[in-house]
Amino acid sequence: MNAKHPVSLSLNVRGMGPSATLSLNERCRELRRQGHTVCNLGLGQSPFPIPATVVEALRASAAENDYLPVKGLRELRGAVAEYHRRQDQIEVHPDGVIIGPGSKELMFLVQIAYYGEIIIPTPCWVSYMPQARIIGRKVSRVHSSAKQGWKVTAAQFLRSFEMVHDDYRPRLLVLNYPANPTGLTYTVDELKEIAEVARRFHAIILSDEIYGGLHHSGEHVSIARFYPEGTIISSGLSKWCGAAGWRVGTFCFPPDLYWLLDALAAVASETYTSVCAPVQYAAVRAFRGGVEIERYLWHARRILRAVGQQCAAILQQAGLNVLVPAGAFYLWLDFSPLRERLAARGIETGPQLCERLLEEAKVAILPGGAFARSRGELTARLAYVDFDGARALAASENVPLDADLPPDFTRQWCQNVISGVERLADWLTSSGNRAARV
Amino acid sequence: MNAKHPVSLSLNVRGMGPSATLSLNERCRELRRQGHTVCNLGLGQSPFPIPATVVEALRASAAENDYLPVKGLRELRGAVAEYHRRQDQIEVHPDGVIIGPGSKELMFLVQIAYYGEIIIPTPCWVSYMPQARIIGRKVSRVHSSAKQGWKVTAAQFLRSFEMVHDDYRPRLLVLNYPANPTGLTYTVDELKEIAEVARRFHAIILSDEIYGGLHHSGEHVSIARFYPEGTIISSGLSKWCGAAGWRVGTFCFPPDLYWLLDALAAVASETYTSVCAPVQYAAVRAFRGGVEIERYLWHARRILRAVGQQCAAILQQAGLNVLVPAGAFYLWLDFSPLRERLAARGIETGPQLCERLLEEAKVAILPGGAFARSRGELTARLAYVDFDGARALAASENVPLDADLPPDFTRQWCQNVISGVERLADWLTSSGNRAARV
Repeated sequence: MNAKHPVSLSLNVRGMGPSATLSLNERCRELRRQGHTVCNLGLGQSPFPIPATVVEALRASAAENDYLPVKGLRELRGAVAEYHRRQDQIEVHPDGVIIGPGSKELMFLVQIAYYGEIIIPTPCWVSYMPQARIIGRKVSRVHSSAKQGWKVTAAQFLRSFEMVHDDYRPRLLVLNYPANPTGLTYTVDELKEIAEVARRFHAIILSDEIYGGLHHSGEHVSIARFYPEGTIISSGLSKWCGAAGWRVGTFCFPPDLYWLLDALAAVASETYTSVCAPVQYAAVRAFRGGVEIERYLWHARRILRAVGQQCAAILQQAGLNVLVPAGAFYLWLDFSPLRERLAARGIETGPQLCERLLEEAKVAILPGGAFARSRGELTARLAYVDFDGARALAASENVPLDADLPPDFTRQWCQNVISGVERLADWLTSSGNRAARV
Repeated sequence: MNAKHPVSLSLNVRGMGPSATLSLNERCRELRRQGHTVCNLGLGQSPFPIPATVVEALRASAAENDYLPVKGLRELRGAVAEYHRRQDQIEVHPDGVIIGPGSKELMFLVQIAYYGEIIIPTPCWVSYMPQARIIGRKVSRVHSSAKQGWKVTAAQFLRSFEMVHDDYRPRLLVLNYPANPTGLTYTVDELKEIAEVARRFHAIILSDEIYGGLHHSGEHVSIARFYPEGTIISSGLSKWCGAAGWRVGTFCFPPDLYWLLDALAAVASETYTSVCAPVQYAAVRAFRGGVEIERYLWHARRILRAVGQQCAAILQQAGLNVLVPAGAFYLWLDFSPLRERLAARGIETGPQLCERLLEEAKVAILPGGAFARSRGELTARLAYVDFDGARALAASENVPLDADLPPDFTRQWCQNVISGVERLADWLTSSGNRAARV
């Protein structure tokens, strides 16, 4: 604190540090500086480069310098609508699309515009809760459990909605699948049941499908198919197009919710104004798809599936409760079967677990607490993207798409991930002596 | 409203339409569709293309796809600090710099993070007030007048601060110069006096210097020179680099205010995350400057000065109260000397004036009300950028930089602006009959 300029911050913001992911990256960098070989399985970012045709499109539009419309370039809004019609077999009109500098920004602004309760199933993505906190919105968490495969059920939503005796309460239910942090997704029946509950309570579903294009077998289904009138689909280029750093997010609204889209756009016009013009022109190319992008996607999915399955198998063998992922690039690790063994080593909480794992085995993963689970829970998220995606894609190109990748593929091209996971397994099964705190 | 999804919006956001600028653009487009020749002197955007070397840098970095650090690419933060050291002769450390997707977004987030009163001199830029309204922050306006050259004085700030008997009240004073909407700027003495008042009350100055690079004689002076410990400098690529659509804004904090920078960065990490990576790499090129960019800037300034002076002269002759601009690309029109004549035509407010001018003369300008002045006031902003900046730059290249542009230059290369201003003058001086409402 400074005498001349005393700290004067909003109470909603005070004490907010950098995100858990960022802090972990800093730690890893510091350990590497000290000469350690660190496996960073904490940060989740697509390991693949942006498809060449999309990069080429950015080069071609580099001189575009006009403000584009707040809701986005007309052509891009059309391409996004067409993308969802094609991928998800749902009706999306270009008028219902808005482009933002990342879907995270759009989520924040929609919470500013909307007045109602935010419902968030856990474990959930790191930013949902802090966003609501920054603007002082009420959040209700609905917790899943290992027993139910880390997915919240329609029955839970129903109970939570019925409990407050306020059927007309405005509610925004945030659903993320394939999910960060679990890599799991809902079945069609589960989506139908959740849709039915949402419809009965007039709840809006904000369906975060940013990993939809990275469903490992290309079978992502949007809940918008079963609740079209009340679902906002959130997506963008960060994951399936490998363009996280480009910051292009998309929201698709149904006509019944255009009042919320318009309010969001009004807030957008006073904040980010419009998304970077050259990138919007390039994004048109990405959303239009085509053979080159389709091939890229199928190779990416096949690689992620192979890595995810192998990591899950190694960790299952080490005694962890881990489900084989259906999409994205995360595993949700449940260490509770090893609770006693870990307690004997003085590890009783998620943060302790991750701290000791980083200190002793130099493997970085994020504790469940970062995903709105309790600190005491022995869970963590592992991201399996610490490999050179360009090289892996090139190698995958040599294997026909209708075949499986050879068994040694992941060890050859995604070696840092596999060895990190093996180090984690070794650390778990090693004697307490070796791993004991010095 | 819809029965299934009743509208549920934050009261801070309800009724917010698209910005005044956007609505006016829509009107102009509609009139053009109807076959009218419209002069749009409403929208303020640099008429010049981005310097070729900067566009080339974006092409070279098109494949960059990583998330960059929240506060921005290290190299870019260094280039921005160096830019301000060079331009403004002040100390800025790279650690004090943050990059955002437009300085507008950074202003919004800083208001979210900061807890205190926002002080805004008027007339002011269109977005300051709506931003504060969206997040429910208290704003105090301090009004300037024609008599004092449309600039708020240090004495006014002093009176307004003393009046509340709360010397330690946290205050953020937003100062914009060269100013949108007036094109005017403060003298060194005026800046020193304001700095002294701010220092006495420990007020933070958010110094919006986005038009600093477009001071018509390249003589912009930052208030940070006189109040380094309490000034945040806001700038970016939109104006001097012709890159509005790229969305690159910069804030420079002094060490005494790093607590606010860090809080801003924490909010940024939960909202826009980081600015578009390829554009940040390209922005390094822009902020480093060099001969090509310097030449571009001097030509741009000379053109804007010539156009601004000529427009002001035409309108002064028509009886308006207009000051010759010092920077940016706006004129602030004060129609009050013609109040009676206008009243005879049924025009008594700013919005009526602008509406009739658009209807009858097909010239679009924005009424003072859009800039936080009262609706009754007969003021308006005129932007003189409706010309092909690339062609004007090319023509200017043929005239040595130490000479003035030839007298017919503006009529030849910025013809649409000059004829729009002449139409406005004609409309004012024409008989009530010709201009009367049909």
